[in-house]
Amino acid sequence: MWSDLKLGLQSCFQECYCSGVSGGHEVNGEELLEMCWRRHFLRGGAEPRPVLPWRDYLSGCHLGFGPLGVALRGNLESQWWDSALPFREQVLAVDAPLHGPPAAANPQGLRLLRSEALHEALQGRGYSQEQGRPSLEEVLGASGVLRESLLPGALAQYASCLELVNRRLPCGLAQTGVCFHSVPESKQHIKNLVRIGERTTSLLAWFSSPRTTGQWLDYWLRQRLQWWRKFAVAPSNFSSSDFQDEKGRKGFNLHYRFPWGTETIETLKNLGDTELLQMYPGDSSKLLGRDGRKNVIPHVLSASGNLDRGVLAYLFDSLQLAENPLTKKKIAQRKVLKLHPCLAPLKVALDVGKGPTTELRQVCQGLFNELSENGISVWPGYLETVQVSLEQLYAKYDEMSVLFMILITDATLENGVVQLRSRDTTMKEMMHISRLTDFLTKYVTSAKNV
Amino acid sequence: MWSDLKLGLQSCFQECYCSGVSGGHEVNGEELLEMCWRRHFLRGGAEPRPVLPWRDYLSGCHLGFGPLGVALRGNLESQWWDSALPFREQVLAVDAPLHGPPAAANPQGLRLLRSEALHEALQGRGYSQEQGRPSLEEVLGASGVLRESLLPGALAQYASCLELVNRRLPCGLAQTGVCFHSVPESKQHIKNLVRIGERTTSLLAWFSSPRTTGQWLDYWLRQRLQWWRKFAVAPSNFSSSDFQDEKGRKGFNLHYRFPWGTETIETLKNLGDTELLQMYPGDSSKLLGRDGRKNVIPHVLSASGNLDRGVLAYLFDSLQLAENPLTKKKIAQRKVLKLHPCLAPLKVALDVGKGPTTELRQVCQGLFNELSENGISVWPGYLETVQVSLEQLYAKYDEMSVLFMILITDATLENGVVQLRSRDTTMKEMMHISRLTDFLTKYVTSAKNV
Repeated sequence: MWSDLKLGLQSCFQECYCSGVSGGHEVNGEELLEMCWRRHFLRGGAEPRPVLPWRDYLSGCHLGFGPLGVALRGNLESQWWDSALPFREQVLAVDAPLHGPPAAANPQGLRLLRSEALHEALQGRGYSQEQGRPSLEEVLGASGVLRESLLPGALAQYASCLELVNRRLPCGLAQTGVCFHSVPESKQHIKNLVRIGERTTSLLAWFSSPRTTGQWLDYWLRQRLQWWRKFAVAPSNFSSSDFQDEKGRKGFNLHYRFPWGTETIETLKNLGDTELLQMYPGDSSKLLGRDGRKNVIPHVLSASGNLDRGVLAYLFDSLQLAENPLTKKKIAQRKVLKLHPCLAPLKVALDVGKGPTTELRQVCQGLFNELSENGISVWPGYLETVQVSLEQLYAKYDEMSVLFMILITDATLENGVVQLRSRDTTMKEMMHISRLTDFLTKYVTSAKNV
Repeated sequence: MWSDLKLGLQSCFQECYCSGVSGGHEVNGEELLEMCWRRHFLRGGAEPRPVLPWRDYLSGCHLGFGPLGVALRGNLESQWWDSALPFREQVLAVDAPLHGPPAAANPQGLRLLRSEALHEALQGRGYSQEQGRPSLEEVLGASGVLRESLLPGALAQYASCLELVNRRLPCGLAQTGVCFHSVPESKQHIKNLVRIGERTTSLLAWFSSPRTTGQWLDYWLRQRLQWWRKFAVAPSNFSSSDFQDEKGRKGFNLHYRFPWGTETIETLKNLGDTELLQMYPGDSSKLLGRDGRKNVIPHVLSASGNLDRGVLAYLFDSLQLAENPLTKKKIAQRKVLKLHPCLAPLKVALDVGKGPTTELRQVCQGLFNELSENGISVWPGYLETVQVSLEQLYAKYDEMSVLFMILITDATLENGVVQLRSRDTTMKEMMHISRLTDFLTKYVTSAKNV
């Protein structure tokens, strides 16, 4: 599954710093990166900066996301779980350890071992085993293997979960979690050294009667592509292509078109029953599910997404450049990150205008608590002590993708009215403070159901 | 932090199969384990079964949780995030990679490397390096180290997050995620071999002025102990004890009293500024936060919990044995898992009684969707095809810790009334179907606010 990643990485990064066209707006990769560092979507902005940083983020070899990026990925993950909701009667959420015993058939993989044990075993080479020192083979045999995919861990739970869903097909197992993978380092001075990357992965393993698997593959392809496009400013940058693996099994890759080329963000594949039969050798009766009145061994369909790359895709997708209304110079373009309301890490920012500081602060704290308790993420701008102009605040919040800025002033103390400024329209409107929770909840919900 | 785990494991398991007293009820570890396997809270019930299984679950060396255990831990994790809500103005949620480069100062730890690279390096021992084959030292030097605690990853983000909270102290960083640890194997035939365990960890790193850290430690101790007790049937089984580490730094362990003895579930510690200064060598100006009008380097307080052990604690805490009302024989005791309404993986089960199958099924599916969309987890009992008695259903759902069983019958089709049976009181009451969502939402919310 990751071979295409490796190829993609090796071929596509020459143009990393060139600008591309996204959603009708020119997106400059370097500018976006700088903004993502400044606004704490991505970590790694400190010196010394890497030479080709997007490559590191794509391959999962980076410091991770900053608080805003973490919240964005959290929102994406929670939307992914929601996407399985139409099948919630038949889909179980599972989890599995990140490492396991090495498979006898496959001595390769990412090994997990204590350096002390390794050093001891190496010192003991050639020594008599009677000293009780484990040999290198014993140390390696006892070392764990880190998962590179969620699929084996999910398949191992098929039989026990089948019982839970009353043996009825189709059914599914859903999981999200971190997986590891090797990243070839073409530029490393020592040959054959690789780095190890991490990625947050989503997996839906779908078990259905062999006679319907083809239809289900088409169904899930449509669903998954629709899902990715749903949150996009420029949905056409999300696309799919089909492939066949070495065993002739059919699958689809879902891509996002970055400025330097397309990258895979999710892979769907019709696995047949091969992996399932391997997982339960000699005991295929455990696998039988009910398809109407027949008992069949299901075929497995896997849809495996890379949510970290999904975050990067939406960062590129949502960046829009607009002329700065103040300067009217193209050089001072206003950057707005128009993340979908469901994905935006912060729904509102709360700030104070003119008026008595203590009282305004109290109103802000009350409103902060009310909104937070209703699941609306708030940025406490009123805690900022450095005075900046409203225009500077708007620019900052647009870069942070904050949907609305709420301004509390002395007018609020008099008549309860606040000013609400929209990220997407830049329009300001007045609203009574008691209507805010309801308005914001409905705004996000209706954006989700469009 | 994990030395106490290791000691605890070695000394406390002789009595693993003995029964203990919890919440006034005798809890038999073996019976509970068998029930947790049967009801899919824990995985590992298949043959061959381990000899001392609770030991494996406590140490994190197991197959993981089943779907109900995963949901229970998910609920516990989400309650943990909520517990930081009173400080949400000052607490940022962060994330960090699970592995990183090895620290030069500490060549130990859990190494992550490709077995191919290791084998190649070993074959190449003594060969000339001009062949481009990496030496063993190079392979080890390039290998990653897996995290054994969330703290270093969080501390590394202190400086950039301080900027986000306007440099104001106190502030906090919160994170949950999987950590790894070594588990000594005293019974292994080869000396010095260890297994590697995993655990889902919660971390609150709290940064405050040195003059207030002592008070904050007391505050968080009280808060955290209260939090664990809040969800317990027998709160007194959760307790704390103080300790001093080798550097004389003060801390507290929070314990749960299992039948075989107490085990640590969370550790709070006043770390001073040592780790923080080590993380940012020679650049302590970055660390300065505002304490009123003064700029100070904060002291760090860490509260690190083991959510997997928390799940085990609540499983023991919530198991209650009651006489079976039908047989009145003590041998046929009814087992009820009285998990706190916020923690129970399933809030309701939906079942059908007498009446026209198709119509009742439609009502069930409509209700299933309505409840699910309102965030109430439902068990679709109506999909079950094997006929069982109501008493058998009650027994099953009590073991699954389902709060209410809703029975849809032909009366529901006539007048919209359903039967609601409570896990905790075993009472049945009639309710109009339109009131269910509201009733269940309020039931869980009010249990949370008690």
